Amino acid sequence: MPLKPRPQPPPRPDAAGIRHRLHTIIFEADTFAGRLFDLALIGCILASVLVVMLDSVPSMQLRHGRLFLVLEWAFTLMFTLEYLLRLFCIGRPLRYALSFYGVVDLLSIVPTYLSLLLPGSQYLLTIRVLRILRIFRVMKLVQYVGEAEHLVRALRASGKKITVFLFAIGSLVIIFGSLIYLIEGEKAGFGNLFEACYYAIVTLSTVGYGDLTPQTPLGKAISALIMILGYSIIAVPTGIVSVELAQARKLKISTQVCPDCSAEGHDPDAAFCKYCGSRL
Amino acid sequence: MPLKPRPQPPPRPDAAGIRHRLHTIIFEADTFAGRLFDLALIGCILASVLVVMLDSVPSMQLRHGRLFLVLEWAFTLMFTLEYLLRLFCIGRPLRYALSFYGVVDLLSIVPTYLSLLLPGSQYLLTIRVLRILRIFRVMKLVQYVGEAEHLVRALRASGKKITVFLFAIGSLVIIFGSLIYLIEGEKAGFGNLFEACYYAIVTLSTVGYGDLTPQTPLGKAISALIMILGYSIIAVPTGIVSVELAQARKLKISTQVCPDCSAEGHDPDAAFCKYCGSRL
Amino acid sequence: MPLKPRPQPPPRPDAAGIRHRLHTIIFEADTFAGRLFDLALIGCILASVLVVMLDSVPSMQLRHGRLFLVLEWAFTLMFTLEYLLRLFCIGRPLRYALSFYGVVDLLSIVPTYLSLLLPGSQYLLTIRVLRILRIFRVMKLVQYVGEAEHLVRALRASGKKITVFLFAIGSLVIIFGSLIYLIEGEKAGFGNLFEACYYAIVTLSTVGYGDLTPQTPLGKAISALIMILGYSIIAVPTGIVSVELAQARKLKISTQVCPDCSAEGHDPDAAFCKYCGSRL
Amino acid sequence: MPLKPRPQPPPRPDAAGIRHRLHTIIFEADTFAGRLFDLALIGCILASVLVVMLDSVPSMQLRHGRLFLVLEWAFTLMFTLEYLLRLFCIGRPLRYALSFYGVVDLLSIVPTYLSLLLPGSQYLLTIRVLRILRIFRVMKLVQYVGEAEHLVRALRASGKKITVFLFAIGSLVIIFGSLIYLIEGEKAGFGNLFEACYYAIVTLSTVGYGDLTPQTPLGKAISALIMILGYSIIAVPTGIVSVELAQARKLKISTQVCPDCSAEGHDPDAAFCKYCGSRL
Repeated sequence: MPLKPRPQPPPRPDAAGIRHRLHTIIFEADTFAGRLFDLALIGCILASVLVVMLDSVPSMQLRHGRLFLVLEWAFTLMFTLEYLLRLFCIGRPLRYALSFYGVVDLLSIVPTYLSLLLPGSQYLLTIRVLRILRIFRVMKLVQYVGEAEHLVRALRASGKKITVFLFAIGSLVIIFGSLIYLIEGEKAGFGNLFEACYYAIVTLSTVGYGDLTPQTPLGKAISALIMILGYSIIAVPTGIVSVELAQARKLKISTQVCPDCSAEGHDPDAAFCKYCGSRL
Repeated sequence: MPLKPRPQPPPRPDAAGIRHRLHTIIFEADTFAGRLFDLALIGCILASVLVVMLDSVPSMQLRHGRLFLVLEWAFTLMFTLEYLLRLFCIGRPLRYALSFYGVVDLLSIVPTYLSLLLPGSQYLLTIRVLRILRIFRVMKLVQYVGEAEHLVRALRASGKKITVFLFAIGSLVIIFGSLIYLIEGEKAGFGNLFEACYYAIVTLSTVGYGDLTPQTPLGKAISALIMILGYSIIAVPTGIVSVELAQARKLKISTQVCPDCSAEGHDPDAAFCKYCGSRL
Repeated sequence: MPLKPRPQPPPRPDAAGIRHRLHTIIFEADTFAGRLFDLALIGCILASVLVVMLDSVPSMQLRHGRLFLVLEWAFTLMFTLEYLLRLFCIGRPLRYALSFYGVVDLLSIVPTYLSLLLPGSQYLLTIRVLRILRIFRVMKLVQYVGEAEHLVRALRASGKKITVFLFAIGSLVIIFGSLIYLIEGEKAGFGNLFEACYYAIVTLSTVGYGDLTPQTPLGKAISALIMILGYSIIAVPTGIVSVELAQARKLKISTQVCPDCSAEGHDPDAAFCKYCGSRL
Repeated sequence: MPLKPRPQPPPRPDAAGIRHRLHTIIFEADTFAGRLFDLALIGCILASVLVVMLDSVPSMQLRHGRLFLVLEWAFTLMFTLEYLLRLFCIGRPLRYALSFYGVVDLLSIVPTYLSLLLPGSQYLLTIRVLRILRIFRVMKLVQYVGEAEHLVRALRASGKKITVFLFAIGSLVIIFGSLIYLIEGEKAGFGNLFEACYYAIVTLSTVGYGDLTPQTPLGKAISALIMILGYSIIAVPTGIVSVELAQARKLKISTQVCPDCSAEGHDPDAAFCKYCGSRL
């Protein structure tokens, strides 16, 4: 993939005040300060998630619980400051607060404050791992934007086919689950249709825990059939995504714009605009 | 994938009677009433399958058994009415009754009635989960028709290759199963060739329950070989389906031929030939 | 895939004798008798393999052992007759006898005769499942020849890349296996490097029996790494085979032969021979 | 893939001395002696790794420990000699010593010497399995160079997309792991967030050991969701690599341009333009 040099934007002389400068640092990644901020933020996010995870280990908690508490409050205060700054320097704060990343940002700091009011609410604190999602906003800025968009576009294009595929999977699971439920019954641990469908999913997706296994010859035969099916139809989503990715890649190459009607999306070998017929 | 606007069919002034109007609602999805009917049907199907599944949980059955019975009869009566209406408003009722979806429709309602005659026939009632298949007829109508056809065409095109692949898998399973049976024998739980082939399928498809595992070094070596094989040859069906899907996609695109230069391969939204610029 | 009508060969008036006619029936599939013979042979092969498998089930053996013995001898005598006829009617019997299918044919009948001399040699008898391989010769004849060749050509074309891939897999297995061996040690069941490599294969191929599992946090981290690796690099053989299959499909379309230099393998859009430059 | 005959380099009359000749033998694979050396080296590497592995089996160690020790020292001395020769005959020894393969070569021999100073350092000796990596240098020389480069180029091209994919996998693992930790808790064996994330990886990658399994209905539902996700998104890396491999293959093909009509996309073995017939 050719790496085009990213043109450095000229320093904006009309930056009206601190608000604009903050916006540049916090929400963009074109300036040195903006990149530094993003890298520091990624570091803080990863560190804070690691602290949450370490805090869940009882032995760790016993020994370093105090340290974790201090770190957690440090991260929370920092993230709170960042959240307030974001609200302050963006044009439409409410829209940001209600956006996906706005909600994630809020969920990253609220549990710690709530734990003061409701001490012992261990469960609530686990919500903090959602902080990991904040990484994606930063990635979006820095340099992976093209790649991620590329992937997302291909996945969206294959959305309908994937839906049909998932419906087919769901039906197979219900039908095969019922068969196994009838054949194996309660003695082999298939207590109800939900358990049997759980087993069918475990088998069809080739996970195969082995917590439930068929005991009768017929059950084994049906299970073998589910396995072969699961092993084979994995080909379908793979094929779908491959084709769409190939298509997305082809589209990416064509950056020509029609000089007459400004239409985009021409094939790389096109000599004339396919919409208005004028020479490209 | 470009979404072409679906032209609304003009109201048919020659609709002779209720029979035709019913047909439009039940079998088609172009009108508002038809779409509403389809959505209601999908809701009923999903709800009735959920009731069947919940009914199989003993504790649920104890507490809400009465409710489930009422719901089940409500759904059955509705589906019966729908089945009769379908028979009434279609041109050739017998052909419908013997078609795949006709049989599925019948199998969706018969077990409940039979349970009156043969009380306690729990097993029979599980057939009702086949109702889930009825979803696909509705999906076929609404909007996923193109996508599903696309998938089905690609799968049919790769049918012969997949058959060869499955035959090869079957032979590998029998030969490796026999090897494992000879090496591990009854002590390790491989009581007969069927069990050994079941083990070979569990391993080749990378499911790996762990209910049967090799105990001897040679058995482990053979099993490792089966795993590597299974891990690698998954590439074959995936490749087959990818290629056919790419082909199906290409076919969907290239139907127009330029009247001037006979070039093919135009996008579906192209109005002018991209090679010579003449109107398509 | 377009299905071309297979031209029926004209009846050969110069068929010199029974030998030629037998050859036509046994080795070819163009005539009605030849197809009938092939279908009967497939039936016998499948039935005889089924008998071998059923015979391995102790309870079956007890009840129907006598029947299985009779059937086995019937199949063996039939296959022996077929083998002798093949030797008789083919031009170069020795070359056939030493070919892959010749050896498989012999291995299909020898064990039963040997079991007379060495009674109780249960192990030897399992070799008979190799009969399943004979199916492929018949498939080669009937109608799947193009598809199978197509697959085999693509696999052969990707052979070198697959070899590199398997070498990489082997190295990963040895290195990760050693790591796990060092970290987990004998206590967790990883008694020696072979066991550890077996575990690495079970994990990398995403089979995951669960007979050996990491116990220490570090071992779990390494195992998680192996899993993610195995989950990701499955993409490599899949991609290789997809590309080669796409290529093989493209090649299949071009059946043109240069009228000047008889070269084949032209692209479907070629107007001139790419080897000698003359018009196709 | 067409196999082009590799032109034999003419004997270099200006080879100044033994140093150059050694370089030809050790670092190149064009001469008969060079190929022989490479094959012998591959044999020694594989044999020495096998000895390391056999040595780890206690029963083997007891019986053949002496033999293994002798073989190990033989291999170590040979590899030491080879290492010194490489240092001697290469132009810039320090650069070689600090290169990847230089370090691997050193790590292949150091542990055996260290085991004299620090007897009983079993752990150290396992480093010797890194010798397996030396195979790749030889493969690079002999004939797989094009294939390996092909693969590596495609993987590097998909590097960024794979990074985005792995980040997404990591986030899914942390979020689903936390969910499972909250739902199942310590009773089901999910003692802390690390264990829960380990479980999420085991499930998402479809490995499925079964050492940890969900016990509650909600936990099973979430696990089923993870399985379906893992089963479906395997399509993403596969699609990425397929597309890049197809691209790499295409690039390999289309380098020539017709001097007459400027058409591209000629096969590597084409001598004439397939569109206008003029000599390439």
